[in-house]
Amino acid sequence: MVNQRADVGWQSSKSDSSGVSNSGESSKESSRCSTPVLDADRTDRLRDKMKRRIESGDHWFSLEFFPPRTASGAVNLISRFDRMGSGGPLFIDVTWHPAGDPGSDKETSSMMIASTAVNYCGLESVLHLTCCNQTKEKITAHLNKAKRLGLKNIMALRGDPIGEDWVEEDGGFNYATDLVKHIRCEFDDYFDICVAGYPTGHPEAESYDNDLRHLKEKVDAGAHFIVTQLFFRAETFLRFVKNCRAIGITCPILPGIFPIQGYHSLRQLVKLSKLEVPEEIMQVIEPIKDNDAAIRSYGIQQAVEMCKVLLASGEVPGLHFYTLNREVATIEVLRQLGLWAEDPRRPLPWAVSAHPKRKVEDVRPIFWASRPKSYIYRTQDWDDFPNGRWGNSSSPAFGELTDYYLFYLKSKSPKEALLQMWGEELMNEGSVYEVFTNYITGQTNPSGHKVMCLPWNDDPLAPETNLLKDELEKVNRRGILTINSQPNINGKPSSDPIVGWGPAGGYVFQKAYLEFFTSSENVTALLQVLKKYEPRVNYHIVNVQGKNITNAHEMQPNAVTWGIFPGREIIQPTVVDPVSFMYWKDEAFALWIEQWAKLYEDESPSRMIIQYIHDNYFLVNLVDNDFPLDSCLWQVIEDMFALLDSPRETQEEGNQLTSG
Amino acid sequence: MVNQRADVGWQSSKSDSSGVSNSGESSKESSRCSTPVLDADRTDRLRDKMKRRIESGDHWFSLEFFPPRTASGAVNLISRFDRMGSGGPLFIDVTWHPAGDPGSDKETSSMMIASTAVNYCGLESVLHLTCCNQTKEKITAHLNKAKRLGLKNIMALRGDPIGEDWVEEDGGFNYATDLVKHIRCEFDDYFDICVAGYPTGHPEAESYDNDLRHLKEKVDAGAHFIVTQLFFRAETFLRFVKNCRAIGITCPILPGIFPIQGYHSLRQLVKLSKLEVPEEIMQVIEPIKDNDAAIRSYGIQQAVEMCKVLLASGEVPGLHFYTLNREVATIEVLRQLGLWAEDPRRPLPWAVSAHPKRKVEDVRPIFWASRPKSYIYRTQDWDDFPNGRWGNSSSPAFGELTDYYLFYLKSKSPKEALLQMWGEELMNEGSVYEVFTNYITGQTNPSGHKVMCLPWNDDPLAPETNLLKDELEKVNRRGILTINSQPNINGKPSSDPIVGWGPAGGYVFQKAYLEFFTSSENVTALLQVLKKYEPRVNYHIVNVQGKNITNAHEMQPNAVTWGIFPGREIIQPTVVDPVSFMYWKDEAFALWIEQWAKLYEDESPSRMIIQYIHDNYFLVNLVDNDFPLDSCLWQVIEDMFALLDSPRETQEEGNQLTSG
Repeated sequence: MVNQRADVGWQSSKSDSSGVSNSGESSKESSRCSTPVLDADRTDRLRDKMKRRIESGDHWFSLEFFPPRTASGAVNLISRFDRMGSGGPLFIDVTWHPAGDPGSDKETSSMMIASTAVNYCGLESVLHLTCCNQTKEKITAHLNKAKRLGLKNIMALRGDPIGEDWVEEDGGFNYATDLVKHIRCEFDDYFDICVAGYPTGHPEAESYDNDLRHLKEKVDAGAHFIVTQLFFRAETFLRFVKNCRAIGITCPILPGIFPIQGYHSLRQLVKLSKLEVPEEIMQVIEPIKDNDAAIRSYGIQQAVEMCKVLLASGEVPGLHFYTLNREVATIEVLRQLGLWAEDPRRPLPWAVSAHPKRKVEDVRPIFWASRPKSYIYRTQDWDDFPNGRWGNSSSPAFGELTDYYLFYLKSKSPKEALLQMWGEELMNEGSVYEVFTNYITGQTNPSGHKVMCLPWNDDPLAPETNLLKDELEKVNRRGILTINSQPNINGKPSSDPIVGWGPAGGYVFQKAYLEFFTSSENVTALLQVLKKYEPRVNYHIVNVQGKNITNAHEMQPNAVTWGIFPGREIIQPTVVDPVSFMYWKDEAFALWIEQWAKLYEDESPSRMIIQYIHDNYFLVNLVDNDFPLDSCLWQVIEDMFALLDSPRETQEEGNQLTSG
Repeated sequence: MVNQRADVGWQSSKSDSSGVSNSGESSKESSRCSTPVLDADRTDRLRDKMKRRIESGDHWFSLEFFPPRTASGAVNLISRFDRMGSGGPLFIDVTWHPAGDPGSDKETSSMMIASTAVNYCGLESVLHLTCCNQTKEKITAHLNKAKRLGLKNIMALRGDPIGEDWVEEDGGFNYATDLVKHIRCEFDDYFDICVAGYPTGHPEAESYDNDLRHLKEKVDAGAHFIVTQLFFRAETFLRFVKNCRAIGITCPILPGIFPIQGYHSLRQLVKLSKLEVPEEIMQVIEPIKDNDAAIRSYGIQQAVEMCKVLLASGEVPGLHFYTLNREVATIEVLRQLGLWAEDPRRPLPWAVSAHPKRKVEDVRPIFWASRPKSYIYRTQDWDDFPNGRWGNSSSPAFGELTDYYLFYLKSKSPKEALLQMWGEELMNEGSVYEVFTNYITGQTNPSGHKVMCLPWNDDPLAPETNLLKDELEKVNRRGILTINSQPNINGKPSSDPIVGWGPAGGYVFQKAYLEFFTSSENVTALLQVLKKYEPRVNYHIVNVQGKNITNAHEMQPNAVTWGIFPGREIIQPTVVDPVSFMYWKDEAFALWIEQWAKLYEDESPSRMIIQYIHDNYFLVNLVDNDFPLDSCLWQVIEDMFALLDSPRETQEEGNQLTSG
């Protein structure tokens, strides 16, 4: 397993300029670039990314979502961010609903959803903000909070006035222009600002031309790009762009694409937006209005055709999708357009956070490989992030375990599903071994359910871990309960679909790694066996009380994943770090209780079995330093079992650990 | 060539403890180790190194030198430090002669010689200091200067009083004990302190026992170890140690070994030290006193026999050699004892400075590979040294070129020898190509001399560069005047005798590198050829005016040498750094004039040829990023020549460079 380097990767820039520069004498004041992995995408502002993509003719797409109504809706939406993020959107945006307490700390608020997208899903995000009926103080407070959370982009909107008869307020926010001005006045150049365009004119505008002039005002006030209201005909948008350009609007204008996904959602949207659906579309839809599949299929086809016209026009650098928080239709349209990045290149083996404070981060401990959101959460208060060298991290202080129970880290599966996977009733430790084994093999358990996740891994086995499947099955069956591992890699191309990461033309390497829980009897034998593997194998062995046995330097991290790339310094994104392992073990042991034991009644035998494992097992990690050779870690485990099968020697050693 | 990773390496600790530690819960305050390469040897104090070697039973040796009288003697002594340093002494020491202005900035002063040993030769060094007839202020000033220069160890001596009738001064320094106390009082624990022991009693001591008591006082005052006066019989020393232990002296006591090297030097030494040469030695020597070779041979044999007895006694952790600034006898004794490290393991590919400020330094630009002393000199004012990542270096400001002409960087060869090697008279640019070619091939030039050095390389071709000899010869012959290069290496063991470095059990890697001067015609063709090698090959091409053509990121260094080791982070000791290349090019171009052109008369044709090359040639560096494949750099050069042989295309491009 269980190195869930899942699908959260963020697409690196396709346009890697390597033009000849003619820099002349170098300057002493020049600030040095200390981040080798830096794709320009990671440090650039949204406006700069757009600029580069426009220059290189590289079309992009973006995705709009609205905040969920319920907590479980939020958990689902975050998973969707991860999945849709893997297709390589240039940004996502999150709408703002004044009635839903959008600036609060609730897990369903616009603010929190956008913050999660940035911090935990690594997505460039735009937060909508409406100003109508808001005080300046309130708006400034929202913007300050957004900035603090790492948000860098605002979609400045007027919003819908409350009540029918809306009256302009003196000194208040009457138009989006006022909000744009306010943002620029209070926050200077900090935020990238997006404004809305109406290809058929704003429903409340006096005229189409008048509306265009308003748009020009918004842009002149400091907006960086425009996203349009949805429309149904390519020529509507193209005429709009032409008119915009004619009155001097030069910024990017992104068409809002709405793939029709159902009869009712279309009608509702049309009602809200006061748009007219063209006759030619209604004629197709009306006859099939009760056939959802047929409508969806038509919607996809219609959107694809329209987008092709738009892209071919040369006027459209990117497409903005109104997803309605759904995946299928939008992804299908993008696939057919060839814009969905099927195989997004990962800049690093783990999912990068998009918080500006973390932009230099390029090293992490391997322990959180399957729980990157937990790692980001527990390190959110760090002032500096490791850059190049883990040892340079100035603060190894991890957030307290009591804090770590991040809402979005709750398992996606409900309690009933977990019980079906992990057993309604455990008979003994062997039952637990079986759960681990079934997770590895993907086979159904005796009650007919597949084990799709474990407390340490909320997703099925990663493709890379699949390479180790047979060995993992064998050892889990015997009580080596693996929760993280990686194979050794000796210089595969950085473009390798399974283990590759980083810029093109490079080579990636790994040392074999294995992390597991196992009984103290096994550990006793293991320690004896490990003597034979000095200094090839480094180990850390720790129980829940923190008794720590290791042959590694107590302060020196061991780099276990690294990459060599053209024209850069070495990147070593993953390390086995002795200090942070002690923080990880608290989390790893706690998951036994928090996610598994608590499924069962107090005092129930099942709960006591998990509690026993929690109290008595050791957490072990092993690194095989000799990466060019076949991993010896399986042999280590085999030797351990062989030793256990020769009872006399084992007994002698047993006393040692007990008395140690 | 010409990557002179010569023999200046410093031996890493042989005893790499990897015992199981049981550290329990890790502490948040613990300071992180951020220097992966750190052999304990590099950060430890001398007393700690001794302690570890004593514990591991690993005998060491140390070497005593006196300051030279002339400037050229100083240049020779520094070369000797490099050669003798390669045998792995635990430390060297430099004597103090009050009459020779020992604390001054003269290149021959004790202070400067010891400082050079530390800073430029990377040798742990002990500076002698005598206190007799000195004021406290003067002594403190010497100690402050020593500290500032990076010296960490003092041999505290009384010194010889001036005149026959010496009278104790009240409040002055009368004994070495006073100096030890003063050092501890003024500098606390900063210096490691050595004191002298007299196995047969100090000549001026009232008695042997009285002298032992004085020694005890010196140690009690804060000395860390004892080096003894020379002696001729093992039992003399062993009795002395026994007596020292008996009165409670517990620190290391190192026997002073004096291999007899000649009849006269022996007599002089005996006179100065007031020692008696044992009868059995005189009986051998007297008959052969005019046969230097025979005496030397006897001296070696006698020293070896005595040292064997000493080491076998178990009382002697290390041997201290009075070298008399000569190499042969001491090295031979050490070889026969098996203490000379024939193949010293290099902690890094370049010679590490022993200045405490540089102890974390583990990355340098490749450009100074053959001129490490120049690099150390030009960066001596840096506050921080790159650790792990070149980009982290806070100060890329190199010392001005006017400063760089470090005394010890003067060529070891006199002007006449240089003219013999490089030509009394140059006919044209081709004469220069011939000099380079002869340097590569090791063949004699038409006047019958071997070219043993070039302005950029004061030593013959490095073993590693020998791997590239055939290709280098071919291209130099045609005017690709190479001054630095390395082959690509794809994971050789760190113990490899030619390209290995760093701790045992690791793997080292290199990208192929080639640096050369060549004409603008060649550069024009080269640039055209290089287009075919994008992005595999990175290049920087610059002329003396600083016109800089590159396809590399202007701020991003390219790691060209790196190593992977058990239980550590990645080490990348050598980078091609665009910023420092501009500083290097000033030095590289200046060497044409300073070291070569100035050998000839003003306005002479020879001088004008070198001046022409200086003014018109380009300095080029090439990196082949695809290290697992055979280097393509030779193909690049071949393609360039092929293009030059097809005149039409070349002409077209020619205009481009001229107008660029």
